[in-house]
Amino acid sequence: MNAKVWLVGAGPGDPELLTLKAVRALHEADVVLIDDLVNPAVLEHCLDARVVTVGKRGGCRSTPQDFIHRLMLRYARQGKCVVRLKGGDPCIFGRGGEEAFWLRERGVEVELVNGITAGLSGATNCDIPLTLRGVSRGVTLVTAHTQDDSCLNWRALAEGGTTLVVYMGVAKLGEIQQQLLAAGMDADMPVAMIENASLLTQRECRSELSCMQDDARDFALKSPAILVIGRVAAMAQAAHAMVMASA
Amino acid sequence: MNAKVWLVGAGPGDPELLTLKAVRALHEADVVLIDDLVNPAVLEHCLDARVVTVGKRGGCRSTPQDFIHRLMLRYARQGKCVVRLKGGDPCIFGRGGEEAFWLRERGVEVELVNGITAGLSGATNCDIPLTLRGVSRGVTLVTAHTQDDSCLNWRALAEGGTTLVVYMGVAKLGEIQQQLLAAGMDADMPVAMIENASLLTQRECRSELSCMQDDARDFALKSPAILVIGRVAAMAQAAHAMVMASA
Repeated sequence: MNAKVWLVGAGPGDPELLTLKAVRALHEADVVLIDDLVNPAVLEHCLDARVVTVGKRGGCRSTPQDFIHRLMLRYARQGKCVVRLKGGDPCIFGRGGEEAFWLRERGVEVELVNGITAGLSGATNCDIPLTLRGVSRGVTLVTAHTQDDSCLNWRALAEGGTTLVVYMGVAKLGEIQQQLLAAGMDADMPVAMIENASLLTQRECRSELSCMQDDARDFALKSPAILVIGRVAAMAQAAHAMVMASA
Repeated sequence: MNAKVWLVGAGPGDPELLTLKAVRALHEADVVLIDDLVNPAVLEHCLDARVVTVGKRGGCRSTPQDFIHRLMLRYARQGKCVVRLKGGDPCIFGRGGEEAFWLRERGVEVELVNGITAGLSGATNCDIPLTLRGVSRGVTLVTAHTQDDSCLNWRALAEGGTTLVVYMGVAKLGEIQQQLLAAGMDADMPVAMIENASLLTQRECRSELSCMQDDARDFALKSPAILVIGRVAAMAQAAHAMVMASA
């Protein structure tokens, strides 16, 4: 039996946003390595799997990536069906690519299963049409959190004409606001800050670029949250008017 | 009984990438309005629904959007459970926002269900880690196809530092190549052109910015296809080397 690991996206939180392929993987799993951000309700699809929680815990250090790699490898080499379950999509800020490369290098077969990523789901749940025709030509997903010192080119992001969706931005709200204002983005650019996207506990704070940090503080916005920055973030009314005008 | 329409993403083509929520909607459907690009295999989840095909057909004109709107409204007002099934995600270049606004304006309840969008799925199936740490800070989804005259700011997109994923770009390959080269993007920037993402018929053409149009012609690339433009498109080897170096 060949060693195999499934790297599976669990979606943004709502257990119904799991794909059928993810359900099949959980069915077949002997071991599930689950990130703390994944809704444990999805584990109902497991039949007889050992569940190991890895990843970040509030206030504690995260499980070292190297430890997760070696754990997957050990179980896979024991002939177990290993499912690594990640929040959202494994390849959107999920290290799915890194883990796949590492495992394949060691002769382990890897199957990646896409999941609904939190940025797209959060926007949909708030009725924000990220790519509304005539308003936005696309959407840019970025993370505010990095381990290296590389800087995002906020000026280019501001000028690209796409809606910005920022992951893991709560701790860097002030910096994001400052950079986008310095890049010439309009101070009244609509912003939606969405906590716990797709869960029953989802909360949504509507704001504008110039006051997003203050509003987030008043709202007591907490991680995990995504920020949607762009004209479409205030589009429920405006788009409606456009539809009426073109009807 | 309140009139209700589900606007549901069917995912990129692989029927296993349907979400559980989409399956439930199809189960409950009395009428399904299905786009031509949706894999009809997903209709196996319908129990007793009337299926109406709308959208584009090869060589023919697409069903007018206004007709689709009125059809959904008519069925919904008859008290039928209406599912509008779209390829990918209804809100990523899918007009989900427009349809939701139009229906709600007329008193129809709308529920949007996210789907896996073709750009993310195509990249994953080609082992392209769109947001690989240290190489890409994010991903930008844009469409090359518009009905208005608005131009994308290709210079900003080229400078943003994110991986570009272009939907509906086959007919505009030459223009995209020219614009990105003019914007200063490196001529040897890796490009992956992915036809029929996630289906068994998926085909993949690897190229570089300076020769993507020629390569696509030799490959006989056909719609539907997505383009992935960025260093990560050639990352399978390079990322592996990085992982080894940091291990």
